[in-house]
Amino acid sequence: MSSGLDYTKLFAKDIPGPSSRGEPDPPYNFTYGHGSPDLLPIEGFVDAAADVFRKDGRSLAVYHANGGGLGYLPLREFLVEKLAKHRGIQVTADEILITSGSQQGIIAVMDAFLEPGDTVVTEMFSYAGTLGNLRRHGAEVVGVPLDEEGMRTDLLEKTLTDLQSRGIKPKFIYTIPTLHNPTGRVMGMERRREMLELSRRFGVPIFEDECYADLVFEKEYEHAIRSLDNSNYVLHVGSFSKSLAPGVRLGYVVAPWEVMSQILPFKMDIGTSTMGQMIVAEFLENNFDSHMEHLKSGLERKRDTLIAALKEHFGPEVQPSEPRGGMFVWVRFPEGIDTRKALEAAKAEGVAYNPGPDWAVYADDDERNGMNYVRLCYALLTESETWEGIERMSRAFREAGLT
Amino acid sequence: MSSGLDYTKLFAKDIPGPSSRGEPDPPYNFTYGHGSPDLLPIEGFVDAAADVFRKDGRSLAVYHANGGGLGYLPLREFLVEKLAKHRGIQVTADEILITSGSQQGIIAVMDAFLEPGDTVVTEMFSYAGTLGNLRRHGAEVVGVPLDEEGMRTDLLEKTLTDLQSRGIKPKFIYTIPTLHNPTGRVMGMERRREMLELSRRFGVPIFEDECYADLVFEKEYEHAIRSLDNSNYVLHVGSFSKSLAPGVRLGYVVAPWEVMSQILPFKMDIGTSTMGQMIVAEFLENNFDSHMEHLKSGLERKRDTLIAALKEHFGPEVQPSEPRGGMFVWVRFPEGIDTRKALEAAKAEGVAYNPGPDWAVYADDDERNGMNYVRLCYALLTESETWEGIERMSRAFREAGLT
Repeated sequence: MSSGLDYTKLFAKDIPGPSSRGEPDPPYNFTYGHGSPDLLPIEGFVDAAADVFRKDGRSLAVYHANGGGLGYLPLREFLVEKLAKHRGIQVTADEILITSGSQQGIIAVMDAFLEPGDTVVTEMFSYAGTLGNLRRHGAEVVGVPLDEEGMRTDLLEKTLTDLQSRGIKPKFIYTIPTLHNPTGRVMGMERRREMLELSRRFGVPIFEDECYADLVFEKEYEHAIRSLDNSNYVLHVGSFSKSLAPGVRLGYVVAPWEVMSQILPFKMDIGTSTMGQMIVAEFLENNFDSHMEHLKSGLERKRDTLIAALKEHFGPEVQPSEPRGGMFVWVRFPEGIDTRKALEAAKAEGVAYNPGPDWAVYADDDERNGMNYVRLCYALLTESETWEGIERMSRAFREAGLT
Repeated sequence: MSSGLDYTKLFAKDIPGPSSRGEPDPPYNFTYGHGSPDLLPIEGFVDAAADVFRKDGRSLAVYHANGGGLGYLPLREFLVEKLAKHRGIQVTADEILITSGSQQGIIAVMDAFLEPGDTVVTEMFSYAGTLGNLRRHGAEVVGVPLDEEGMRTDLLEKTLTDLQSRGIKPKFIYTIPTLHNPTGRVMGMERRREMLELSRRFGVPIFEDECYADLVFEKEYEHAIRSLDNSNYVLHVGSFSKSLAPGVRLGYVVAPWEVMSQILPFKMDIGTSTMGQMIVAEFLENNFDSHMEHLKSGLERKRDTLIAALKEHFGPEVQPSEPRGGMFVWVRFPEGIDTRKALEAAKAEGVAYNPGPDWAVYADDDERNGMNYVRLCYALLTESETWEGIERMSRAFREAGLT
């Protein structure tokens, strides 16, 4: 092979470094946002596939079937109802774009808005995928501290005022208001109103990522910021990766047409899998509410198990978050512990987690990078695996002299 | 809405123009590469979905399930066998990347190789999607004329020599050797050997697009250029959009790791739909040969119907290609007819087709843009719709004074 063509001279300059082949996941894997294999509606998917293929399978034969470039119409129509009922959002199917996972939508929005040097404001800790893509776009990311209700709007106002005084207008405020990643916090309605008011005052749109919003364990809870917006200030993105499964690779963007029409040219896969959209649309139409009830009660048990295991094995030294839903616990270790360094010891015990700095806007700033935090995903493992994994993690930390 | 935020000041400069809302397809639609709704294996998909969800549905819960970032392992293993048996290609599953349609793979290769001003060599007529993406990357596209066996290698040699004398090294030779789009031509093995020899001599890789290669109607036919390459000169892309359905949105790239590792960073959807890959892998493992036999005999009838309808309604003035397979007929009209202008008249009769210049490297050059050609896709319509559509098209041309 290597005696042939030397490709290094043919690649474009300034491309990212090559991918590595990757390593297998350890047995006690608390990383990523994997779902729960034991909570999947397998028979529901089987029935939905049979029903929808027989009813509308012929649509598979054409590009942009049954709904054009925005996605499979029955799925968008389901979303119109779901967004109204659960998130307080009133839109038509024409304001919804189905994407191949929500990250495709997030990237398309960045492609449409961002040039190198542009500024984006977000929570001081946020989704690593978004932070990585903002860096790839050359954006200056300004992080606003959070409290128990998420992004502090008083500090957001200060940030926007400071930027304005320096002649800088951010392209958007990216926020995860409902079950914030990684902290799990939920922004109250009053603060959502304040954020929208700041968006209007400063002329900066809000880009609201509600990927986890279906997973709040209560029956009734805060509506989306988009529900408060009777104009066009809020762009909204959501996902089926968390409510159903990452393997369906389906997300959605809600945006007014003037924005949608500029996002669409950056969605270059000639449409998202119709096969996947069909099955999911058929399943959700009949089973969304009952599935969510089942999933949420399963995740709630898993959350409780993880928190109990942390308390049992680490004792009072660690402070786990007690999120109102979702799949992550954000764990505070004593000051001075570097959870990035501790990861090697954990891996030797078969345990993986995400160190705090992975989710930090200021990852290189020891004061603000969450060095003594870890994010643990509790969805993937069974309850007994969680106990075993946390026991191993605590042993690893203890033997490394950390706790 | 429009009294709110003015987004025009927030978008990045130099982004593509906004998408339009699109118009509905006309009833007699010969455009695009749509498949045949009447030849889809619906019950096969139903059975495959039930079997694979019950066997491996739990894999849906994780990102990059069962095979990591390269795609679902059972599908890549199927491809290892299929590529060996049908295309003469010997590779391992690690040299195959599953993509969300072949165009995602084509774009990722361009992303890794191309900077504005780079040169790419291709057939003088080629896939409009590729030509559009090459333009978007700022590439200088040099078109080589075709004859009945596809790209003329004597003229390719001349082109490469000319470019070399001007100090220009093309980044790759993009070719559709098997059932070339739009002409339907198939390159003979001797010419494939000559092209590979030129690739080696000039140090320019071949990027071989075999999206249609499964659809040659004969049982045995020419192998891929990649089958002749015992080094690393040929990159290969294929698709399930034509052999199965566009709605599965699955394609693949075959490349050595030194190239694959630089393509992967540009595939930014966190994996292709596992749900779609599972169903397709399960279906193909048991049914590929019988499905292809059924599909090809159906397409052969449709091809014959379209050619017969063209001869019946247009008479000897038009010269349709008689492709050995695929889904397109490339039709030559008398010199002087501008098929772009004629399209309006055809649309008024409910007929749509792709005018020749849509597929021309030199679309703005009246001498070389195929102004008097159209490409017709015969897969989508039934045979009676094809008769009716061609009758309407001939009436439209006659009434417009063209024939």
